[in-house]
Amino acid sequence: MERLRIRILGLRGDAILVTHLPNIAYLCGFTGSSGVLLVGPDTATLFTDGRYAIQAPEEVAGTRVRVRIAKRGLLSEAGAALRASRGRQRVLFPPSKISVGQFQQLRAAAGARVLWSSDKNAVEELRAVKDARELEEMRQAARLISEVFDDLTGLVQAGIAENEIAAEAEYRMRRKGAAGPSFESIVAAGPRSALPHARPTARPIGKNELVVLDLGAILRGYCSDMTRTVFVGRAPRKVRGWYHAVLEAQLAAIDALAAGVKAGDVDAAARRALRRHGLARAFTHSTGHGLGLEVHEIPRLARGDQAQLAAGNVVTIEPGVYIEGVGGIRIEDDVAIGERGIEILTRATKEFLEL
Amino acid sequence: MERLRIRILGLRGDAILVTHLPNIAYLCGFTGSSGVLLVGPDTATLFTDGRYAIQAPEEVAGTRVRVRIAKRGLLSEAGAALRASRGRQRVLFPPSKISVGQFQQLRAAAGARVLWSSDKNAVEELRAVKDARELEEMRQAARLISEVFDDLTGLVQAGIAENEIAAEAEYRMRRKGAAGPSFESIVAAGPRSALPHARPTARPIGKNELVVLDLGAILRGYCSDMTRTVFVGRAPRKVRGWYHAVLEAQLAAIDALAAGVKAGDVDAAARRALRRHGLARAFTHSTGHGLGLEVHEIPRLARGDQAQLAAGNVVTIEPGVYIEGVGGIRIEDDVAIGERGIEILTRATKEFLEL
Repeated sequence: MERLRIRILGLRGDAILVTHLPNIAYLCGFTGSSGVLLVGPDTATLFTDGRYAIQAPEEVAGTRVRVRIAKRGLLSEAGAALRASRGRQRVLFPPSKISVGQFQQLRAAAGARVLWSSDKNAVEELRAVKDARELEEMRQAARLISEVFDDLTGLVQAGIAENEIAAEAEYRMRRKGAAGPSFESIVAAGPRSALPHARPTARPIGKNELVVLDLGAILRGYCSDMTRTVFVGRAPRKVRGWYHAVLEAQLAAIDALAAGVKAGDVDAAARRALRRHGLARAFTHSTGHGLGLEVHEIPRLARGDQAQLAAGNVVTIEPGVYIEGVGGIRIEDDVAIGERGIEILTRATKEFLEL
Repeated sequence: MERLRIRILGLRGDAILVTHLPNIAYLCGFTGSSGVLLVGPDTATLFTDGRYAIQAPEEVAGTRVRVRIAKRGLLSEAGAALRASRGRQRVLFPPSKISVGQFQQLRAAAGARVLWSSDKNAVEELRAVKDARELEEMRQAARLISEVFDDLTGLVQAGIAENEIAAEAEYRMRRKGAAGPSFESIVAAGPRSALPHARPTARPIGKNELVVLDLGAILRGYCSDMTRTVFVGRAPRKVRGWYHAVLEAQLAAIDALAAGVKAGDVDAAARRALRRHGLARAFTHSTGHGLGLEVHEIPRLARGDQAQLAAGNVVTIEPGVYIEGVGGIRIEDDVAIGERGIEILTRATKEFLEL
């Protein structure tokens, strides 16, 4: 909260409106599904609804945040609170985390003495730099998903359905203490593995098929996100070649990671390796993304991205190749960037497993 | 799509922009996590990104929707497509499903010849009326969660943790074919049951505690949402009284459901019953909400809501009472409204179970 207040001052603002729930959880600990946080120079008010009348005060205890149970819309009440305070005010708001409709409601309630100033990613930029406690939580979330993968290798075989594997994966996450998966688990076999974001189906895994397992868990609020690709049977030489090309790209991108490096340069390192194998065009997405309270955060490791990486960032590194009708291969780790080097948080083997 | 086009014409629009993913899935079958759909009088274009280059054309096959893989932002490309078409156009957009930032991007790309006209809930209103196929899917999603609850009653006992029950519940959903839970499963025991939206914790259930189980599953895209409250041990007379008051309120609200009735009148029926038992103030949320591709849809069954219910609506009916520090009780069913009466889709017993 103090780092946020320094930002408000730096931007000559009098207050900031926080609407995105993970940002609210980050700032004051509230984990409900309905909330708006208004942070001023020395006060902060959380607006939520009656369902959280008991939970909200418990969760924000110790943060000097007041809780107001809104009877009308949260944004109307936040706007009315601004109107009630004296004088002209310049209030920062997040343009990508407030809808056109909500903003209209807010402006109407706040009145003409509030000057709205758009500030993208105010809280997201704070969140992108993890402190030691957060890093420890993320280590554990990553260890958990690595263990789940180790357990699953014994289960993946011809005849078992994609969605059975997904069920087993999520059950194991839960049993190890996770609140649940951090995104819809991906288990995609055979030609379906060529769809980077395939949903698991009842289709049984066949013999001699690639299987992409892209899994993540939420542990005490923090996400992990890991992909491994295995083969059921003995892989043909060509598939083996693709696997090693992806692994080479993944290691090249990890090698490129460091505080001060541009995000786009990490992406370029992965693409360069795949180009050497004639697979550049089969890599249809970005190399990675930030990870934390959400499974997709800044920075984005995308083509040409000029953002500079910083110590404290935790990112995924996940190049892949996708051959329509045949199959796909993706390898993904979660990596923390430190002052003096990196730390790979996900620990499952990257050897090409033929099960 | 045809019903939507009739609406566009009725509002004197030339096209409509659909940004909310469940609306896109409803209209054309695309289930990816990134998409914008532009529907004109006789064409429709889905803009998505490279990750869905293979999946998107497969999913929209047969709907006469063209797929465009966007290289830049989806909204910039949708805007550019509008700019490229001749003449002035009036384009409808959803003010609550597009952020201030996205809208700026869109307007800039589309240029001055596009007149933007806000149209709230265009697709949501179509979705609120389920057809026979959808109703059958929802019946099955509701049957699935009812069976999961029946299985769980054998597991709920003193000593087992809330999150273990949640893990077992979600595993059983998956094994019965669900894609996963339709919201974060709630298993809340003892004083935690007084938090309507509690997250399951590692806290073991104690003897003589209320346990609220609020669970839902997604089956072939459609959500169920059901709550039952049980007691571990022999319930004191007071708790038994609360239970029957909530059940009376729930049955009163179900009785009030019919096509043509105002949503607020259903809510009032539940509150009236609780008032008779001196529990009106312990009921801190709304009586229910629409259910379908999303777990919260219109109509909302909230205090004073003037919307008229219609045949084809599927809603939850879920009054509850919450006594801080002691516990809570909620009973929830999914109910379909027909031309000639209602159908309760969730089938688990509402007897007060003492386990």
